[in-house]
Amino acid sequence: MLALMDEAVVAGTFTRSATRSAPVRDCQRKLAQSEDGPAAFLVNSGNSNAFTGRLGKEAVAGICAAAASALGIAEERIFTSSTGVIGEPLPWQRIAEAVPALRDALDAGGIEPAARAIMTTDTFPKGASAEVALPGGTVRIAGIAKGSGMIAPDMATMLVYVFTDAKVGREELQEIVSTACDRTFNRITVDSDTSTSDTLLVAATGASGVDASGEPAFAQALQGVFHDLALQVVRDGEGATKLVEVRVTGAVSEADAHRVAMAIANSPLVKTAIAGEDANWGRIVMAVGKSGAEADRDRLAIRFGDIVVARDGFRAPDYSEEAASAYMRRQELEIGVDLGLGDATAAVWTCDLTHGYIDINADYRS
Amino acid sequence: MLALMDEAVVAGTFTRSATRSAPVRDCQRKLAQSEDGPAAFLVNSGNSNAFTGRLGKEAVAGICAAAASALGIAEERIFTSSTGVIGEPLPWQRIAEAVPALRDALDAGGIEPAARAIMTTDTFPKGASAEVALPGGTVRIAGIAKGSGMIAPDMATMLVYVFTDAKVGREELQEIVSTACDRTFNRITVDSDTSTSDTLLVAATGASGVDASGEPAFAQALQGVFHDLALQVVRDGEGATKLVEVRVTGAVSEADAHRVAMAIANSPLVKTAIAGEDANWGRIVMAVGKSGAEADRDRLAIRFGDIVVARDGFRAPDYSEEAASAYMRRQELEIGVDLGLGDATAAVWTCDLTHGYIDINADYRS
Repeated sequence: MLALMDEAVVAGTFTRSATRSAPVRDCQRKLAQSEDGPAAFLVNSGNSNAFTGRLGKEAVAGICAAAASALGIAEERIFTSSTGVIGEPLPWQRIAEAVPALRDALDAGGIEPAARAIMTTDTFPKGASAEVALPGGTVRIAGIAKGSGMIAPDMATMLVYVFTDAKVGREELQEIVSTACDRTFNRITVDSDTSTSDTLLVAATGASGVDASGEPAFAQALQGVFHDLALQVVRDGEGATKLVEVRVTGAVSEADAHRVAMAIANSPLVKTAIAGEDANWGRIVMAVGKSGAEADRDRLAIRFGDIVVARDGFRAPDYSEEAASAYMRRQELEIGVDLGLGDATAAVWTCDLTHGYIDINADYRS
Repeated sequence: MLALMDEAVVAGTFTRSATRSAPVRDCQRKLAQSEDGPAAFLVNSGNSNAFTGRLGKEAVAGICAAAASALGIAEERIFTSSTGVIGEPLPWQRIAEAVPALRDALDAGGIEPAARAIMTTDTFPKGASAEVALPGGTVRIAGIAKGSGMIAPDMATMLVYVFTDAKVGREELQEIVSTACDRTFNRITVDSDTSTSDTLLVAATGASGVDASGEPAFAQALQGVFHDLALQVVRDGEGATKLVEVRVTGAVSEADAHRVAMAIANSPLVKTAIAGEDANWGRIVMAVGKSGAEADRDRLAIRFGDIVVARDGFRAPDYSEEAASAYMRRQELEIGVDLGLGDATAAVWTCDLTHGYIDINADYRS
């Protein structure tokens, strides 16, 4: 996948993995520098160029040199991503040779094929867009994402590319991106495993001529596009049949609320119960207990959607297993937990754990 | 299950879950007190008496009062455990009424039926024993355990009861038990989920007349029985087909070594690859990276058994995928990771993640 911009301010967030890939390290180095100007994103799937040592760095340099020459822009402005098998040397010459053909095939409306090109175990291409009316005019935002397994982003998700024609400065864009990422991609989990390749890159081309600086509506719209893409990633979680929102309230701190929500969202026992459409709320109790967050059994309340299952540390007197079971048959579920201790809240999104996940991952070589 | 001791020093460790069960809380309170003397362990399966509020506490009190009266020993010396569904009130009267029959059926050789009586999703009863020759004579140790899911002990494992006829003081016994537990039950994981009922109780009756105080051989033998039982729990992990030892060396601290080992042992992607007999070492790299431990990609070495897969952050030049694939078909596997940074080590034990786990947990109500 190739995206070429005549002019762009670029911001991004990346995996915090200690074994992150060569292209991730290269992007981080380039973003730390301070030029703007023409830029390109170049992405391959099939090989992640992670854990490939010196050869990995050489591969990135080789691809960037070839792209710089074919596209006529500085190497420092070529941002690459690779996704696929870990630990295999990347046959980068094949990518370098393909750049001119990719350039000739560039199409201003080509975002849907781009979303397809970066898929691995994804079952559908993922895209989202928004238009925001600002005082100076309307700006547009469009983004694509890939990812369905090894999803527990710890800075960003698998691969996400978002483009806008808004005018906005680099520092402000980075701040908006980091905040929005923290509220969207960092709140999803498929299998608690964090990729070595997680990359989110945002390019603001300014082509609209509309200044988005200091406009909360722009930051909000960008976050909306992130949220939409993040939920598509969970919905396409490997083997997933359900999208689950876990909403924790009443925690003493946001960190505690997040910890409880993630403990529930990552619990194999909770996720298999959801796959079995079993209103097994005892496993929610278990996950709250193991989370390490401050919790008081006698203040805990649990609900499935609007159905109150337990309150004050005990099964609700009017709880109906039948109603809860009917609710569990839905495709989109909300699990609510109130810790009854404070005002902090957090929401995360996850999916169920099914035979499909085992099928995919006992065979697919990632 | 009922175990009755005319005289016993009792020590134990328990789940650190914030939503731990009523019997766990009761045992912890009793162990904090300081009497020795006659004692009994009384265990039911089918209902865990966890998240049952005031009724849970009343149930424990009711059972202990009935047992104290039937057995002629103090309520404070009756230690109960319950395992099974979370959140359902325990019909404790049925247990209280059963105590006299349990007492009449007591059998000095009845440890194997006891191991069977505490099973839930276990596929085989778990027992281990040892004899230790000490300067004063020989002492014996025998223990039973149950557990196969919701296993990521955070102080102990599901339910474990160990008996010895050695003479040893309570403080020393507790210290030996805590240390041994930390090196055995706290090093296993089936599914990263921590039970609300984890209980390990050890009774030293002194019936041998042999003083085991200050004898390293006794502590070692007790740890050996723990280790044996812990590995039986993993081997019987829900749906498990393989027993996997993860051994981490070269870490800067033992905490880091443990963190890396657990990240590997709990990774759904590593565990499904093992189920698929796929020598997918890239997922080991991923798990090291996400663990949060200090790691340097360029010093990392990975092996399957004696087969060196990667060293110095790169696939080993003589690595044979064929040899690794043949190794993965074994029933017992060792995954070795050397971080190349320091001298600290850790080992943990886990199993694979299979369709069987999904089958059991999409249906079984725990």
